[in-house]
Amino acid sequence: MDPRIQKHAEIIVNYSTRIKKGENAIIQYSDEGRDLAIEIYKKTAQIGANPLILNMPTEAIRGYYDHTPKRFLNNFPSHFYSLVKESDVLISIMSSNNTRFLSNIDPELSGIRSKALTDIQEERMKKRWSLTLYPTNAYAQDAEMSLKEYEDFVYSAILRDWEKERKKMEKLKKRFEAGSEVRLVGIDTDLNMSIKNRKMVISDGTHNLPGGEIFTAPLEKTVEGRIYYDLPAIYQGREVRDIKLEFEKGEIVDFSSSKNEGLLKSMIDTDDGSRRLGELGIGTNKGISIFTKNILFDEKIYGTIHLAIGRAYEECGGKNKSAIHWDMIKTMKKGSIILDGEPIQKNGKFKTKF
Amino acid sequence: MDPRIQKHAEIIVNYSTRIKKGENAIIQYSDEGRDLAIEIYKKTAQIGANPLILNMPTEAIRGYYDHTPKRFLNNFPSHFYSLVKESDVLISIMSSNNTRFLSNIDPELSGIRSKALTDIQEERMKKRWSLTLYPTNAYAQDAEMSLKEYEDFVYSAILRDWEKERKKMEKLKKRFEAGSEVRLVGIDTDLNMSIKNRKMVISDGTHNLPGGEIFTAPLEKTVEGRIYYDLPAIYQGREVRDIKLEFEKGEIVDFSSSKNEGLLKSMIDTDDGSRRLGELGIGTNKGISIFTKNILFDEKIYGTIHLAIGRAYEECGGKNKSAIHWDMIKTMKKGSIILDGEPIQKNGKFKTKF
Repeated sequence: MDPRIQKHAEIIVNYSTRIKKGENAIIQYSDEGRDLAIEIYKKTAQIGANPLILNMPTEAIRGYYDHTPKRFLNNFPSHFYSLVKESDVLISIMSSNNTRFLSNIDPELSGIRSKALTDIQEERMKKRWSLTLYPTNAYAQDAEMSLKEYEDFVYSAILRDWEKERKKMEKLKKRFEAGSEVRLVGIDTDLNMSIKNRKMVISDGTHNLPGGEIFTAPLEKTVEGRIYYDLPAIYQGREVRDIKLEFEKGEIVDFSSSKNEGLLKSMIDTDDGSRRLGELGIGTNKGISIFTKNILFDEKIYGTIHLAIGRAYEECGGKNKSAIHWDMIKTMKKGSIILDGEPIQKNGKFKTKF
Repeated sequence: MDPRIQKHAEIIVNYSTRIKKGENAIIQYSDEGRDLAIEIYKKTAQIGANPLILNMPTEAIRGYYDHTPKRFLNNFPSHFYSLVKESDVLISIMSSNNTRFLSNIDPELSGIRSKALTDIQEERMKKRWSLTLYPTNAYAQDAEMSLKEYEDFVYSAILRDWEKERKKMEKLKKRFEAGSEVRLVGIDTDLNMSIKNRKMVISDGTHNLPGGEIFTAPLEKTVEGRIYYDLPAIYQGREVRDIKLEFEKGEIVDFSSSKNEGLLKSMIDTDDGSRRLGELGIGTNKGISIFTKNILFDEKIYGTIHLAIGRAYEECGGKNKSAIHWDMIKTMKKGSIILDGEPIQKNGKFKTKF
């Protein structure tokens, strides 16, 4: 077995979720994450906690939609709810053998199902949880790599000194929380917004693993100017390229893209909130330098920022509501992040050594 | 996918457990039964029930014993208990990649663990449950077959018309319940016992799948005579060959074997109950004709009987208590089963066509 799998398990059990004696843990994986699940199981047992492995194969989930009459999609699996309620820690391992297995499922159906499972999802969020990824050929394919290359990529993002990473991010957080006016400058880009009194949240590997971003919610009506995204924005596997957005008083007043502009339009037109920003995020993970079409990694690329249209996170103090939250990522190699007139990052590198 | 996997799933869902709309089901597999688990998942969803797949890899279970300090073996996984309590149907799929994965674990440790899980086991027994097997190379190896040969063997035992099988077994049950004195005659064998007023239970595929035996508990003090077992008795992978037992007033007064006699002795000496019979079973599954060192199949071979030393099943009306229940199987190709003086089976074939 790749020894990095054991290190990955070690971080999940002893850092991300800090499982303790006597606690109940659920380890969930989809297709190929069995080796990682077993390592987590062993380490959890060793501590004197109670591990249980749930398997949710993508083929079973897809089969669910293919075979279940619509009227049953509202069914509530109360045994699953009881299991989650009695658990302290939930670990989810993405390990699909196909990232497009739901591409041809009517979003209405998956919407009904998501809604039926809301109580379980809310219960999960009350627990200590970790979301991570086990490298498979499906993800490698999206990243345009061989599996071996992709494994190197994944573990360089995940197997980090997270205590050290957190300290770095805490410094940045302090800096941003003390300021108010953020300006993003770059090719075809000059965007201003206020983050005054908003909380900056750090992603330190305790929930998303890899972590490596700090994020907040800009004041809803303060976003002014224009931005050009050099990286594609992806929605359910579909790419929208070369997005340009123009904002006035927080609202998108003009937009364009070189591919799938119709999708961009329909996303922006979803509701009132989808015309405003819900998130400003800044990538800080030096182990990630390549765009791989997977948001768990992409939004943490060192030297990028991302802005999401739609729903804001409550923990940031954001108020924007929307049915969507769509992240769009931009590299800052030829740009700057300026806070209250002072450059914080220039050409993709933070000015303050941290 | 082998179309027999779908037929297997069909029998489990619609016959063995009869899962209904709105019910909660747990599908549990160890190593290689994923395809069968997915088929069961789909069929369960289709009905409008709620399936959940638990994965219990043998490597995780073994790792549990290897890594968990003894004082933690008593831990009670209350989340697992809640899950079972809220479920209606439990399906267990044996699918190990190694049937000896626990061979070198101290039985004391697995004993402590079994005891700690008693409440979960009892809760399971209150539900509709099914125990079945997915063919793997590990089982094929024990059976001294290739995987392909073993698959044919497994499916010929499992993919049967169980309604028809049940009717046959019900006739036999009636016949035995109306009688009292059973005599087994064969090479080096002449054993008498009373089954008066005891219940004959049929294994019709609703719990064990394959089913295919009828069994009862002989009156504890009535067993007299001797028996020779031409098939090996197996305990945790170890074989005891050519067992001969002699009974007086229900108790074993003499015994011998050609291999592992020490194990035979220690089993018989376990406690008071282990010197008496707890079960008389008669195999009725015509799809099973070969001994494969797997009790789920062996005890159902058409033309065999088995006697277990130790604990009797309560549903038979048996009273013998013991820490063990050890099945020993004998072919009856050169013998007879006689009930109240009348041959019921001769040379491995039932006299009454059924």
